[in-house]
Amino acid sequence: MSQILQEVLAANKQYQAEFGDKGSLALPPARAFAILTCMDARLDPAKYAGLSEGDAHVIRNAGGRASDDAIRSLVISYKLLGTKEFFVIHHTDCGMLLFTDDIMRDLLASSLETATVDENGWHDVGQGPGSAEARNIAFLTFKNLEQSVIDDVQRIRQHPLVPATIPVYGYIYDVKSGQLLEVPAATQIGQAK
Amino acid sequence: MSQILQEVLAANKQYQAEFGDKGSLALPPARAFAILTCMDARLDPAKYAGLSEGDAHVIRNAGGRASDDAIRSLVISYKLLGTKEFFVIHHTDCGMLLFTDDIMRDLLASSLETATVDENGWHDVGQGPGSAEARNIAFLTFKNLEQSVIDDVQRIRQHPLVPATIPVYGYIYDVKSGQLLEVPAATQIGQAK
Repeated sequence: MSQILQEVLAANKQYQAEFGDKGSLALPPARAFAILTCMDARLDPAKYAGLSEGDAHVIRNAGGRASDDAIRSLVISYKLLGTKEFFVIHHTDCGMLLFTDDIMRDLLASSLETATVDENGWHDVGQGPGSAEARNIAFLTFKNLEQSVIDDVQRIRQHPLVPATIPVYGYIYDVKSGQLLEVPAATQIGQAK
Repeated sequence: MSQILQEVLAANKQYQAEFGDKGSLALPPARAFAILTCMDARLDPAKYAGLSEGDAHVIRNAGGRASDDAIRSLVISYKLLGTKEFFVIHHTDCGMLLFTDDIMRDLLASSLETATVDENGWHDVGQGPGSAEARNIAFLTFKNLEQSVIDDVQRIRQHPLVPATIPVYGYIYDVKSGQLLEVPAATQIGQAK
């Protein structure tokens, strides 16, 4: 058993010991909202947005993008579980700003091992075959952080499965300060009708 | 400004005040692993798996499914940010067990408003047009919880963009106790080669 697996299971045992009455929480989110945010390790949405267990849905992927899968999750969130407000929260220093889809495809085509970056940019240290599969993937990288929030709020707002009555707020989380900063143009686009 | 938005921003202000030296955390996850789990409001992966900010990537969607978008995120996670172990963690009492893709499509075809469920099953209370768009979406519901973990670990293991050197562990989180329970057949399939 790996050290990480041992640590996770030990932490989980501790959590169980302090679990209290959380076993009686209901399935629908008590505070009826959903957050779409990035998988970035520095982000803890429960902490930065003040969520207790049972409060809100949290959807996370690379970039916090409004991918088809994120939309699937948001639709299930409001349709079956009654959420009424959505947040899109990207963040400063996001990995998705650092590279492009083309870089990602080139790196994966040469090997499947972890790539490294130095002053000359990304390069591969791995040996062995990569995969042509990468040619068909949109990695959803972006060049402008504010615009990425605007684009994703807009995609959700305009999606035929998202009711006009749900407001969609656009924010950026600052990894240096922990602050949530509104992207007013996004929130404006995302307002409920 | 909605009450939820006010509460989130107030909680965020509190978080900023206690932010400490977290502004110096590095982009790559310090503990070099990633968790794929459900968006369910009752789950807090940081708490149930013992994560501090900066430790690990957390990917979440409805069901914790190994969707194309989750795979995209996992590939970025190891390839650019060096994670070396993956967890797939589904949970008991998951919404994805309660309905089928057909139910979801029918509900969305009749209206976009929140549906309700009673002893006769799901039904729509909303008025107005739904959307034909739902006909094209795979909602990734499942009938058997253990099998869903096995299927998703297998999909990740067999994916051409996932290196054979990364172990993929399969677990179920029990919402009644907070316990992580291994799905041995999944972990077996997911073992590194």
